[in-house]
Amino acid sequence: MLLYDSARSGNCYKVRLLLAHLGIPYERRELSVHDRANRPALLGGLNPALRVPTIVLDDGRSLGESNAILWYFGDHTRYVPDDRYERAQVLQWQFYEQYDHEPNIAVPRFWLHYKGGAIDPVALAARQSAGYRALDAMEKHLAGREFLVGSRYSLADISLYAYTHVAEEGNFDMARYPAIRSWLARVAAQPGHVTIDA
Amino acid sequence: MLLYDSARSGNCYKVRLLLAHLGIPYERRELSVHDRANRPALLGGLNPALRVPTIVLDDGRSLGESNAILWYFGDHTRYVPDDRYERAQVLQWQFYEQYDHEPNIAVPRFWLHYKGGAIDPVALAARQSAGYRALDAMEKHLAGREFLVGSRYSLADISLYAYTHVAEEGNFDMARYPAIRSWLARVAAQPGHVTIDA
Repeated sequence: MLLYDSARSGNCYKVRLLLAHLGIPYERRELSVHDRANRPALLGGLNPALRVPTIVLDDGRSLGESNAILWYFGDHTRYVPDDRYERAQVLQWQFYEQYDHEPNIAVPRFWLHYKGGAIDPVALAARQSAGYRALDAMEKHLAGREFLVGSRYSLADISLYAYTHVAEEGNFDMARYPAIRSWLARVAAQPGHVTIDA
Repeated sequence: MLLYDSARSGNCYKVRLLLAHLGIPYERRELSVHDRANRPALLGGLNPALRVPTIVLDDGRSLGESNAILWYFGDHTRYVPDDRYERAQVLQWQFYEQYDHEPNIAVPRFWLHYKGGAIDPVALAARQSAGYRALDAMEKHLAGREFLVGSRYSLADISLYAYTHVAEEGNFDMARYPAIRSWLARVAAQPGHVTIDA
Protein backbone atom coordinates (compact mmCIF):
# COMPACT_ATOMS: atom_id res chain seq x y z
CA MET A 1 0.00 0.00 0.00
CA LEU A 2 1.33 3.42 -1.00
CA LEU A 3 0.62 6.79 0.59
CA TYR A 4 1.34 9.88 -1.49
CA ASP A 5 2.39 11.99 1.44
CA SER A 6 3.76 15.27 2.68
CA ALA A 7 5.63 15.25 5.98
CA ARG A 8 4.42 18.78 6.77
CA SER A 9 0.77 18.31 5.87
CA GLY A 10 -1.66 17.84 8.75
CA ASN A 11 -4.05 16.18 6.31
CA CYS A 12 -1.43 13.51 5.57
CA TYR A 13 -0.59 13.24 9.27
CA LYS A 14 -4.19 12.23 10.02
CA VAL A 15 -3.73 9.16 7.83
CA ARG A 16 -0.29 8.32 9.24
CA LEU A 17 -1.64 8.65 12.80
CA LEU A 18 -4.57 6.30 12.24
CA LEU A 19 -2.44 3.74 10.37
CA ALA A 20 0.02 3.83 13.29
CA HIS A 21 -2.80 3.20 15.79
CA LEU A 22 -4.00 0.30 13.67
CA GLY A 23 -0.51 -1.11 13.00
CA ILE A 24 -1.07 -1.13 9.24
CA PRO A 25 2.18 -0.98 7.22
CA TYR A 26 2.54 1.15 4.10
CA GLU A 27 5.06 2.94 1.92
CA ARG A 28 5.36 6.72 1.87
CA ARG A 29 6.10 8.74 -1.23
CA GLU A 30 6.84 12.36 -0.37
CA LEU A 31 5.50 15.04 -2.72
CA SER A 32 6.65 18.65 -2.60
CA VAL A 33 4.24 21.23 -1.19
CA HIS A 34 6.13 23.94 -3.08
CA ASP A 35 6.42 22.57 -6.60
CA ARG A 36 3.09 21.00 -7.49
CA ALA A 37 3.71 20.78 -11.25
CA ASN A 38 4.10 16.99 -11.17
CA ARG A 39 0.80 16.35 -9.43
CA PRO A 40 -1.40 15.85 -12.50
CA ALA A 41 1.10 13.25 -13.79
CA LEU A 42 1.36 11.49 -10.41
CA LEU A 43 -2.17 11.81 -9.03
CA GLY A 44 -4.34 12.14 -12.16
CA GLY A 45 -6.71 9.18 -12.18
CA LEU A 46 -6.02 8.53 -8.48
CA ASN A 47 -7.62 11.58 -6.82
CA PRO A 48 -9.86 14.18 -8.52
CA ALA A 49 -8.43 16.87 -6.21
CA LEU A 50 -4.79 16.10 -7.20
CA ARG A 51 -3.77 16.52 -3.57
CA VAL A 52 -2.04 14.59 -0.84
CA PRO A 53 -2.93 12.44 0.97
CA THR A 54 -3.81 9.99 -1.78
CA ILE A 55 -3.65 6.31 -0.95
CA VAL A 56 -3.21 3.46 -3.42
CA LEU A 57 -4.39 0.12 -2.05
CA ASP A 58 -2.59 -3.10 -2.85
CA ASP A 59 -5.15 -3.91 -5.55
CA GLY A 60 -4.44 -0.57 -7.29
CA ARG A 61 -7.64 1.18 -6.24
CA SER A 62 -7.09 4.68 -4.88
CA LEU A 63 -8.73 7.15 -2.52
CA GLY A 64 -8.31 10.84 -1.82
CA GLU A 65 -9.48 13.18 0.95
CA SER A 66 -7.91 12.62 4.35
CA ASN A 67 -11.19 12.12 6.17
CA ALA A 68 -12.53 9.63 3.62
CA ILE A 69 -9.30 7.63 3.96
CA LEU A 70 -9.74 7.66 7.76
CA TRP A 71 -13.21 6.13 7.39
CA TYR A 72 -11.96 3.49 4.96
CA PHE A 73 -9.48 2.20 7.53
CA GLY A 74 -11.19 3.27 10.76
CA ASP A 75 -14.76 2.08 10.35
CA HIS A 76 -15.52 -1.01 12.44
CA THR A 77 -12.49 -0.35 14.65
CA ARG A 78 -12.42 1.27 18.11
CA TYR A 79 -11.88 4.65 16.42
CA VAL A 80 -15.44 4.90 15.03
CA PRO A 81 -18.50 4.65 17.29
CA ASP A 82 -21.23 2.08 16.60
CA ASP A 83 -24.05 4.42 17.53
CA ARG A 84 -25.79 6.02 14.54
CA TYR A 85 -25.94 9.50 16.06
CA GLU A 86 -22.33 9.44 17.26
CA ARG A 87 -21.17 8.30 13.80
CA ALA A 88 -22.91 11.33 12.30
CA GLN A 89 -21.32 13.55 14.95
CA VAL A 90 -17.87 12.29 13.93
CA LEU A 91 -18.68 13.30 10.36
CA GLN A 92 -20.08 16.64 11.53
CA TRP A 93 -16.74 17.50 13.15
CA GLN A 94 -14.77 16.26 10.15
CA PHE A 95 -16.78 18.37 7.71
CA TYR A 96 -16.44 21.29 10.12
CA GLU A 97 -12.71 20.69 10.07
CA GLN A 98 -12.47 20.82 6.29
CA TYR A 99 -14.76 23.84 5.87
CA ASP A 100 -14.12 26.11 8.87
CA HIS A 101 -10.92 24.94 10.51
CA GLU A 102 -8.40 23.73 7.95
CA PRO A 103 -8.68 26.64 5.46
CA ASN A 104 -8.23 29.14 8.29
CA ILE A 105 -5.60 27.40 10.44
CA ALA A 106 -3.59 25.26 8.02
CA VAL A 107 -3.32 28.00 5.41
CA PRO A 108 -1.87 30.71 7.75
CA ARG A 109 0.52 28.05 9.10
CA PHE A 110 1.65 27.28 5.55
CA TRP A 111 2.05 30.95 4.63
CA LEU A 112 3.94 31.89 7.80
CA HIS A 113 5.96 28.77 8.43
CA TYR A 114 6.68 27.08 5.11
CA LYS A 115 5.90 29.15 2.04
CA GLY A 116 8.36 32.01 2.37
CA GLY A 117 8.05 35.27 0.46
CA ALA A 118 5.48 38.03 0.75
CA ILE A 119 2.16 37.44 2.48
CA ASP A 120 -0.99 39.47 1.82
CA PRO A 121 -1.70 40.96 5.29
CA VAL A 122 -5.42 41.43 4.61
CA ALA A 123 -5.86 37.81 3.51
CA LEU A 124 -3.83 36.59 6.49
CA ALA A 125 -5.88 38.63 8.97
CA ALA A 126 -9.13 37.32 7.47
CA ARG A 127 -7.98 33.70 7.76
CA GLN A 128 -6.70 34.18 11.31
CA SER A 129 -9.92 35.81 12.40
CA ALA A 130 -11.93 32.89 10.99
CA GLY A 131 -9.40 30.48 12.51
CA TYR A 132 -9.98 31.96 15.96
CA ARG A 133 -13.73 31.50 15.48
CA ALA A 134 -13.10 27.82 14.66
CA LEU A 135 -10.92 27.42 17.76
CA ASP A 136 -13.49 29.25 19.91
CA ALA A 137 -16.15 26.74 18.82
CA MET A 138 -13.84 23.82 19.68
CA GLU A 139 -13.00 25.33 23.08
CA LYS A 140 -16.67 25.78 23.93
CA HIS A 141 -17.46 22.21 22.91
CA LEU A 142 -14.48 20.63 24.68
CA ALA A 143 -15.05 22.41 28.01
CA GLY A 144 -16.17 19.58 30.30
CA ARG A 145 -15.65 16.91 27.64
CA GLU A 146 -12.80 14.45 27.24
CA PHE A 147 -13.11 14.00 23.49
CA LEU A 148 -15.12 15.55 20.66
CA VAL A 149 -17.73 12.78 20.31
CA GLY A 150 -19.15 10.63 23.07
CA SER A 151 -16.59 9.81 25.74
CA ARG A 152 -13.99 8.11 23.52
CA TYR A 153 -11.14 9.05 21.24
CA SER A 154 -12.38 8.78 17.64
CA LEU A 155 -11.62 9.80 14.07
CA ALA A 156 -13.07 13.22 14.95
CA ASP A 157 -10.22 13.80 17.40
CA ILE A 158 -7.62 12.61 14.89
CA SER A 159 -9.00 15.00 12.25
CA LEU A 160 -9.11 18.06 14.49
CA TYR A 161 -5.83 17.30 16.25
CA ALA A 162 -3.84 17.39 13.02
CA TYR A 163 -3.81 21.15 12.51
CA THR A 164 -4.87 22.31 15.98
CA HIS A 165 -1.71 20.95 17.60
CA VAL A 166 0.44 23.02 15.20
CA ALA A 167 -1.79 26.12 15.17
CA GLU A 168 0.96 28.12 16.88
CA GLU A 169 2.91 27.83 13.60
CA GLY A 170 0.12 30.01 12.13
CA ASN A 171 0.62 32.50 14.98
CA PHE A 172 -2.49 31.42 16.86
CA ASP A 173 -2.24 32.13 20.58
CA MET A 174 -3.22 28.81 22.15
CA ALA A 175 -2.87 30.17 25.70
CA ARG A 176 -6.46 31.32 25.24
CA TYR A 177 -7.70 27.75 25.02
CA PRO A 178 -7.28 25.66 28.19
CA ALA A 179 -9.87 23.03 27.21
CA ILE A 180 -8.23 22.56 23.81
CA ARG A 181 -4.79 22.27 25.43
CA SER A 182 -5.99 19.56 27.85
CA TRP A 183 -7.59 17.71 24.96
CA LEU A 184 -4.38 17.94 22.87
CA ALA A 185 -2.53 16.28 25.76
CA ARG A 186 -5.15 13.51 25.99
CA VAL A 187 -4.86 12.83 22.24
CA ALA A 188 -1.06 12.74 22.41
CA ALA A 189 -1.31 10.21 25.28
CA GLN A 190 -3.32 7.67 23.27
CA PRO A 191 -1.68 4.26 22.81
CA GLY A 192 0.18 4.10 19.51
CA HIS A 193 0.33 7.87 19.08
CA VAL A 194 2.96 9.14 16.64
CA THR A 195 4.07 12.71 16.13
CA ILE A 196 3.72 14.66 12.87
CA ASP A 197 7.47 14.38 12.25
CA ALA A 198 7.65 10.64 12.95
CA MET B 1 -38.20 16.93 13.62
CA LEU B 2 -37.15 20.47 12.76
CA LEU B 3 -34.84 21.62 9.95
CA TYR B 4 -33.30 25.06 10.29
CA ASP B 5 -33.36 25.81 6.60
CA SER B 6 -32.72 28.26 3.82
CA ALA B 7 -34.74 27.87 0.64
CA ARG B 8 -31.83 29.21 -1.43
CA SER B 9 -29.06 27.13 0.13
CA GLY B 10 -27.85 24.13 -1.81
CA ASN B 11 -26.53 22.69 1.45
CA CYS B 12 -30.06 22.74 2.88
CA TYR B 13 -31.47 21.41 -0.38
CA LYS B 14 -29.31 18.28 -0.04
CA VAL B 15 -31.12 17.45 3.20
CA ARG B 16 -34.56 18.25 1.80
CA LEU B 17 -33.86 16.10 -1.28
CA LEU B 18 -32.81 13.05 0.73
CA LEU B 19 -35.70 13.39 3.19
CA ALA B 20 -38.07 13.58 0.19
CA HIS B 21 -36.57 10.40 -1.29
CA LEU B 22 -36.98 8.68 2.06
CA GLY B 23 -40.48 10.04 2.75
CA ILE B 24 -39.46 11.39 6.16
CA PRO B 25 -41.67 14.29 7.36
CA TYR B 26 -40.22 17.35 9.10
CA GLU B 27 -40.85 21.00 9.83
CA ARG B 28 -38.86 23.75 8.13
CA ARG B 29 -37.78 26.95 9.83
CA GLU B 30 -36.41 29.45 7.34
CA LEU B 31 -33.41 31.55 8.41
CA SER B 32 -32.26 34.61 6.52
CA VAL B 33 -29.06 34.33 4.48
CA HIS B 34 -28.66 38.11 4.63
CA ASP B 35 -29.16 38.95 8.31
CA ARG B 36 -27.28 36.32 10.32
CA ALA B 37 -27.32 38.23 13.63
CA ASN B 38 -29.84 35.83 15.19
CA ARG B 39 -27.84 32.69 14.46
CA PRO B 40 -25.92 32.46 17.75
CA ALA B 41 -29.22 32.72 19.65
CA LEU B 42 -30.99 30.17 17.43
CA LEU B 43 -28.19 27.71 16.61
CA GLY B 44 -25.81 28.07 19.58
CA GLY B 45 -25.63 24.70 21.28
CA LEU B 46 -27.11 22.99 18.21
CA ASN B 47 -24.33 23.39 15.63
CA PRO B 48 -20.77 24.61 16.29
CA ALA B 49 -20.69 26.22 12.83
CA LEU B 50 -23.88 28.27 13.48
CA ARG B 51 -25.03 27.50 9.95
CA VAL B 52 -27.96 25.99 8.13
CA PRO B 53 -28.77 23.22 7.64
CA THR B 54 -29.08 22.27 11.30
CA ILE B 55 -31.48 19.49 12.19
CA VAL B 56 -33.12 18.92 15.58
CA LEU B 57 -34.33 15.37 16.06
CA ASP B 58 -37.53 14.58 17.93
CA ASP B 59 -35.53 13.76 21.07
CA GLY B 60 -33.89 17.21 20.98
CA ARG B 61 -30.47 16.07 19.78
CA SER B 62 -29.08 18.15 16.92
CA LEU B 63 -26.71 17.80 13.99
CA GLY B 64 -25.00 20.25 11.67
CA GLU B 65 -23.13 19.91 8.35
CA SER B 66 -25.22 18.92 5.36
CA ASN B 67 -23.18 15.85 4.50
CA ALA B 68 -23.18 14.51 8.07
CA ILE B 69 -26.97 14.90 8.15
CA LEU B 70 -27.18 12.96 4.87
CA TRP B 71 -25.26 10.07 6.42
CA TYR B 72 -27.42 10.08 9.55
CA PHE B 73 -30.55 9.52 7.48
CA GLY B 74 -29.07 7.81 4.43
CA ASP B 75 -26.85 5.10 5.87
CA HIS B 76 -28.37 1.63 5.52
CA THR B 77 -30.75 2.86 2.81
CA ARG B 78 -30.41 2.45 -0.96
CA TYR B 79 -28.59 5.80 -1.07
CA VAL B 80 -25.40 4.51 0.59
CA PRO B 81 -23.45 1.54 -0.81
CA ASP B 82 -22.68 -1.48 1.39
CA ASP B 83 -19.19 -1.96 -0.02
CA ARG B 84 -16.41 -0.55 2.14
CA TYR B 85 -14.49 1.05 -0.73
CA GLU B 86 -17.58 2.57 -2.32
CA ARG B 87 -18.65 4.03 1.06
CA ALA B 88 -15.27 5.74 1.29
CA GLN B 89 -15.65 6.98 -2.29
CA VAL B 90 -18.98 8.60 -1.37
CA LEU B 91 -17.18 10.40 1.45
CA GLN B 92 -14.30 11.34 -0.85
CA TRP B 93 -16.70 13.12 -3.19
CA GLN B 94 -18.54 14.79 -0.29
CA PHE B 95 -15.31 16.14 1.22
CA TYR B 96 -14.27 17.24 -2.27
CA GLU B 97 -17.59 19.04 -2.54
CA GLN B 98 -17.11 20.96 0.70
CA TYR B 99 -13.46 21.85 0.08
CA ASP B 100 -13.11 22.41 -3.69
CA HIS B 101 -16.60 22.76 -5.11
CA GLU B 102 -18.93 24.55 -2.70
CA PRO B 103 -16.62 27.47 -1.78
CA ASN B 104 -15.96 28.16 -5.46
CA ILE B 105 -19.39 27.56 -6.97
CA ALA B 106 -21.88 28.36 -4.21
CA VAL B 107 -20.08 31.55 -3.19
CA PRO B 108 -20.01 33.17 -6.68
CA ARG B 109 -23.67 32.17 -7.04
CA PHE B 110 -24.49 33.89 -3.76
CA TRP B 111 -22.53 37.02 -4.65
CA LEU B 112 -23.97 37.35 -8.16
CA HIS B 113 -27.49 36.14 -7.63
CA TYR B 114 -28.53 36.91 -4.05
CA LYS B 115 -26.24 39.23 -2.16
CA GLY B 116 -26.58 42.44 -4.13
CA GLY B 117 -24.14 45.34 -3.86
CA ALA B 118 -20.54 45.57 -4.95
CA ILE B 119 -18.49 42.44 -5.69
CA ASP B 120 -14.70 42.29 -5.55
CA PRO B 121 -13.81 41.32 -9.16
CA VAL B 122 -10.46 39.78 -8.18
CA ALA B 123 -12.05 37.57 -5.52
CA LEU B 124 -14.84 36.59 -7.91
CA ALA B 125 -12.40 35.66 -10.69
CA ALA B 126 -10.32 33.55 -8.27
CA ARG B 127 -13.42 31.65 -7.08
CA GLN B 128 -14.71 31.13 -10.62
CA SER B 129 -11.36 29.85 -11.81
CA ALA B 130 -11.23 27.33 -8.95
CA GLY B 131 -14.89 26.50 -9.58
CA TYR B 132 -14.11 25.63 -13.21
CA ARG B 133 -11.31 23.33 -11.99
CA ALA B 134 -13.83 21.57 -9.73
CA LEU B 135 -16.29 21.18 -12.61
CA ASP B 136 -13.49 19.97 -14.93
CA ALA B 137 -12.69 17.19 -12.43
CA MET B 138 -16.35 16.18 -12.23
CA GLU B 139 -16.67 16.18 -16.04
CA LYS B 140 -13.62 13.97 -16.41
CA HIS B 141 -14.91 11.53 -13.78
CA LEU B 142 -18.48 11.42 -15.11
CA ALA B 143 -17.50 10.80 -18.75
CA GLY B 144 -18.62 7.21 -19.32
CA ARG B 145 -20.18 6.88 -15.87
CA GLU B 146 -23.82 7.06 -14.85
CA PHE B 147 -23.25 8.25 -11.29
CA LEU B 148 -20.30 9.39 -9.19
CA VAL B 149 -19.79 6.15 -7.23
CA GLY B 150 -20.35 2.63 -8.47
CA SER B 151 -23.28 2.37 -10.83
CA ARG B 152 -25.98 3.72 -8.55
CA TYR B 153 -27.36 7.06 -7.40
CA SER B 154 -25.97 7.76 -3.92
CA LEU B 155 -25.43 10.50 -1.35
CA ALA B 156 -22.41 11.57 -3.43
CA ASP B 157 -24.73 12.53 -6.30
CA ILE B 158 -27.10 14.37 -3.95
CA SER B 159 -24.20 16.36 -2.49
CA LEU B 160 -22.69 17.37 -5.82
CA TYR B 161 -26.01 17.98 -7.54
CA ALA B 162 -27.03 20.64 -5.03
CA TYR B 163 -24.78 23.45 -6.27
CA THR B 164 -23.82 22.04 -9.69
CA HIS B 165 -27.37 22.25 -10.99
CA VAL B 166 -27.53 25.98 -10.15
CA ALA B 167 -23.93 26.78 -11.14
CA GLU B 168 -25.22 28.98 -13.98
CA GLU B 169 -26.43 31.39 -11.28
CA GLY B 170 -22.73 31.89 -10.52
CA ASN B 171 -22.11 32.60 -14.25
CA PHE B 172 -20.53 29.22 -14.92
CA ASP B 173 -20.91 28.18 -18.56
CA MET B 174 -22.30 24.67 -18.29
CA ALA B 175 -22.35 24.19 -22.07
CA ARG B 176 -18.72 23.09 -21.63
CA TYR B 177 -19.78 20.03 -19.64
CA PRO B 178 -21.83 17.45 -21.56
CA ALA B 179 -21.15 14.59 -19.12
CA ILE B 180 -22.22 16.75 -16.17
CA ARG B 181 -25.37 17.83 -18.00
CA SER B 182 -26.37 14.22 -18.73
CA TRP B 183 -25.73 13.32 -15.10
CA LEU B 184 -27.82 16.29 -13.87
CA ALA B 185 -30.71 14.95 -15.95
CA ARG B 186 -30.28 11.44 -14.51
CA VAL B 187 -30.32 12.83 -10.96
CA ALA B 188 -33.44 14.90 -11.65
CA ALA B 189 -35.17 11.77 -13.01
CA GLN B 190 -34.72 9.77 -9.78
CA PRO B 191 -37.95 8.61 -8.11
CA GLY B 192 -39.00 11.06 -5.42
CA HIS B 193 -36.86 13.92 -6.74
CA VAL B 194 -37.85 17.40 -5.58
CA THR B 195 -36.57 20.70 -6.91
CA ILE B 196 -34.64 23.27 -4.87
CA ASP B 197 -37.69 25.54 -4.75
CA ALA B 198 -40.14 22.81 -3.74
